[in-house]
Amino acid sequence: MPENIKICPGYRFAGVHCGLKPGEALDLALLLSDCPAVAAAVFTKNRFPAAPVLYGRRQLAEGSDLRAVMINSGNANACTGHQGEVDVLTVVEVLAAALKLSPAEIFISSTGVIGEPFPVTTVLKGVEPLVSGLEGEALPKADLAAAARAIMTTDQVPKTVGIEIETSQGLVTLTGLAKGAGMIHPDMATMLAYLLTDAEIDRQTWQAMLQRVVDKSFNRISVDGDMSTNDTVLALANGVSGCYLTSSSDLEALEGGLLQIARELAFMIVKDGEGATKVVEIKVVRALNIDAAEKICRAVANSALVKTAFFGQDANWGRIIAAVGYAGVKINPELVNINFDQIRVVTGGVRDPLYQEEDGAAVLRQPEFMVKIDLQSGEDEFTLLTSDLTHEYISINADYRS
Amino acid sequence: MPENIKICPGYRFAGVHCGLKPGEALDLALLLSDCPAVAAAVFTKNRFPAAPVLYGRRQLAEGSDLRAVMINSGNANACTGHQGEVDVLTVVEVLAAALKLSPAEIFISSTGVIGEPFPVTTVLKGVEPLVSGLEGEALPKADLAAAARAIMTTDQVPKTVGIEIETSQGLVTLTGLAKGAGMIHPDMATMLAYLLTDAEIDRQTWQAMLQRVVDKSFNRISVDGDMSTNDTVLALANGVSGCYLTSSSDLEALEGGLLQIARELAFMIVKDGEGATKVVEIKVVRALNIDAAEKICRAVANSALVKTAFFGQDANWGRIIAAVGYAGVKINPELVNINFDQIRVVTGGVRDPLYQEEDGAAVLRQPEFMVKIDLQSGEDEFTLLTSDLTHEYISINADYRS
Repeated sequence: MPENIKICPGYRFAGVHCGLKPGEALDLALLLSDCPAVAAAVFTKNRFPAAPVLYGRRQLAEGSDLRAVMINSGNANACTGHQGEVDVLTVVEVLAAALKLSPAEIFISSTGVIGEPFPVTTVLKGVEPLVSGLEGEALPKADLAAAARAIMTTDQVPKTVGIEIETSQGLVTLTGLAKGAGMIHPDMATMLAYLLTDAEIDRQTWQAMLQRVVDKSFNRISVDGDMSTNDTVLALANGVSGCYLTSSSDLEALEGGLLQIARELAFMIVKDGEGATKVVEIKVVRALNIDAAEKICRAVANSALVKTAFFGQDANWGRIIAAVGYAGVKINPELVNINFDQIRVVTGGVRDPLYQEEDGAAVLRQPEFMVKIDLQSGEDEFTLLTSDLTHEYISINADYRS
Repeated sequence: MPENIKICPGYRFAGVHCGLKPGEALDLALLLSDCPAVAAAVFTKNRFPAAPVLYGRRQLAEGSDLRAVMINSGNANACTGHQGEVDVLTVVEVLAAALKLSPAEIFISSTGVIGEPFPVTTVLKGVEPLVSGLEGEALPKADLAAAARAIMTTDQVPKTVGIEIETSQGLVTLTGLAKGAGMIHPDMATMLAYLLTDAEIDRQTWQAMLQRVVDKSFNRISVDGDMSTNDTVLALANGVSGCYLTSSSDLEALEGGLLQIARELAFMIVKDGEGATKVVEIKVVRALNIDAAEKICRAVANSALVKTAFFGQDANWGRIIAAVGYAGVKINPELVNINFDQIRVVTGGVRDPLYQEEDGAAVLRQPEFMVKIDLQSGEDEFTLLTSDLTHEYISINADYRS
């Protein structure tokens, strides 16, 4: 974790091992706000929402402020039917009692294997150590790191970020943690993200702001944040800074900060994609409209052949142009230009006369680079982050449950 | 090649090495009909159609009968601009002169790397050996095998099929050859297929028949036949059997035979998908309409996580249900049942109470099996063949050009 990460005042964190993961791996996390926090959330659109998602949706609809969030890895509590929903209620009640809170103040997330019965007694065993972990001397950074580690599934590294922003009311902190992994759209690796601030903000404003930020961050990575049965982005604002933000300039500052931490977490998710060795920005510019730009962007970013070529550091632009061609968007092939970073590769739909294979290959050897597709037919653009597709991806996913 | 393959009378085949592939690998194929053949074709819908596809479309639109088809592997002549189109004309003219045919009777296909200049002089060097290969003693099976081998790219095995059917006019033969490989939809591995018969048939009837057959065969595999820059299915009917088929029962028999050879070739393409070790039939039944059935079928068949679980022989039905959930179709999760062959895995959206993991795993250990998804909400169904996603896929595609 970076040394200079800012930990949002008024929140405490804990991560313990309750037995969902083998060995002693952390598998149960708790985030606690010292006072009721205004909550906003964006959930998966999958038609098989997991039990905690069903519960969380109802809870957010009721509009109660939140105090605690408990997240388990190792089991998704998805496709578990009525029993899964009963298990969520049990967990909420036990945690509420342990924390002396109302059940309505507790939020639950789960990530892991789909369709296995939820091991509720194992999870309940973790509640007492988790709660006692909040007492005693606070070590905010270590505790945040433990919580971030406890929500990991196939992630290789925990993902946290924290910044401060200036507002007219004073300094406000934003801290985030997330888990991701899984790299091919449209697919189902669960993405969970928790964005915390000590600002005070109106509930409707906070929800609208979160939706805009998610659309520009987690929905711009080809991991399919919105497609797993469990995906959840939760944002809490507990107001302990005393900064009640209402002016448009303060709200802009907050939204800018929220977008910054969301984008940093999204970048970390792509970088830590299953087996990924590269982060590639796919940028479609001068499209007729945003919808066309997005379709082309997603076709390229999600092409297994393109992603495998990135892994092979093979400047195989033919695969990119083929993906542009099957994206389902009317284009003029003779106007299409493609750049790898500053290197012009394709001009007017054919190889640029000055392009040297070695120049393109040099770009692809970098751990991060950009593929820019210029359609020369309008003014709209769209950008996505994607990763490469590697042997490691196959190994991770062929053996996930064994 | 199976011993009992039927070679369609009135066609000759040849395959030679002209220098597009390394070593002495065959890379140029010729199919010659002894008399003008009625032609039908289905081409890629990619927005960057390759030069031979542009040429072929015009040619078919003009309606001339065909005598010869030349196919090269090693270079797709795609995204090659005006020069690529000029190169097609050059090749057609040289071949027409060598065969003493009209250029209008020559059909051309290319497959291989996209965006490299078309090595026209290399291809022309192959014309003379190719044409002389047709003379001398005919060895139809060996020659068909050579042609099928010459059109391979990442294919591991040549793909040919031949059957006879009874008609009221007598015996008619159907012979096919194809190349495929590449296993992830939507993507760009080129699919080429040539379906030949000695029946005589009206041109419009032949074209309509081919379109129906392609929709039920090559468009039912998750290889994306219709999405590469070069995909082509060409059907020729040269009438040398003397059987002019016009009655509805004869046309039905022909269409049945055409569908049979197309499906067999499609199956071979999936089985030989890049690195594939399994062929899996995904069948969605009792959907509200065909569109819904197809969307769900494709979401499951194209999921990298599902395909990787097949490779791992992991009965991870949660990934299947998650793909059903993000297919963009309104469903009732509580009605969804899933079978692996005869084993009921999911009942009403949750794990079947009698399901044993070992039973599901036993199905997945087979080289071929079926995943049936029963939506219990209508009467329509859709079926696709798919394969698993393996380490070998990554190796093949990361290093394709090196």
